[in-house]
Amino acid sequence: MGDDEAALALAHLTTGIYVLTARDGETRHGMSSSWVTQVSGAPPLLSAAVGARHATHALIVASGGFAINVVGARGRGLEDFFYSPAAQVADNLAGFACDPSPAGLPYLREAMASFECRVVAQHAVGDRSLFIAAITDVVVREPDRPLTSLDLEYVYVGRVVPHPIPR
Amino acid sequence: MGDDEAALALAHLTTGIYVLTARDGETRHGMSSSWVTQVSGAPPLLSAAVGARHATHALIVASGGFAINVVGARGRGLEDFFYSPAAQVADNLAGFACDPSPAGLPYLREAMASFECRVVAQHAVGDRSLFIAAITDVVVREPDRPLTSLDLEYVYVGRVVPHPIPR
Repeated sequence: MGDDEAALALAHLTTGIYVLTARDGETRHGMSSSWVTQVSGAPPLLSAAVGARHATHALIVASGGFAINVVGARGRGLEDFFYSPAAQVADNLAGFACDPSPAGLPYLREAMASFECRVVAQHAVGDRSLFIAAITDVVVREPDRPLTSLDLEYVYVGRVVPHPIPR
Repeated sequence: MGDDEAALALAHLTTGIYVLTARDGETRHGMSSSWVTQVSGAPPLLSAAVGARHATHALIVASGGFAINVVGARGRGLEDFFYSPAAQVADNLAGFACDPSPAGLPYLREAMASFECRVVAQHAVGDRSLFIAAITDVVVREPDRPLTSLDLEYVYVGRVVPHPIPR
């Protein structure tokens, strides 16, 4: 099994498209994130895999929390921005309307839903940290269709590859 | 935040639709599984959250492996069966064409892709075990569109709820 063969297969795993946001004091940051999933029903827990080189990683570790913002079709501009090199700046949330979650995490108003998450465990998995988190608040906004990896021309499998599914 | 409010929000997390299969000696079993995601790029690792009450859980623990079979639109019958009470029988793979993976795990021929996975870590997360697994083999079959939680009338958020996204 070669790397390219593995990448092609991994592109068949469909994910939602999310912007993970974090804040520690006056510092806040967001990142495009697709390796997010529910991992427990009762209590409801989410997992998010985050690379240590991302600015958000340090904010999550320092604050013990993060928010997951679900990108819908009407909010596609969020993915277009956070996927782009333009997002590699200090306060990359400055151009977006944010509401503070109860714990003060940035909820993106353009997202169709947002979760406030409190880290309950952190595991080293390969080249990422896997954060396991309790859900402490949710917001669901206007109805929209969640954007998924099938809606994009590219897919992230550790590196970005063209999406192999015909459209 | 009430349970119903949390469930509604969780239904906005889109997943692929998979059948997780496992085998230990002569015993094999499959289960509908949606809480599966990539969690590392290099090496490529997957996570799968599995309830201890599932027959597959014991097989994964005993054998140290499992397979993930990606359900595509043409393979929807797989989801219809493994989601149903009819799947609650001893050898629930008996009615399906299977090929053995290199390690002898059941690959479902009706799936559009299959992964052979070797467990490298197991973490207790809420009401599940979270298995972290290395990918040891992949198969990609005829092109198809992966089925997602947005294609189904229901969505699993720890319990089954009607899918809230208009279609």
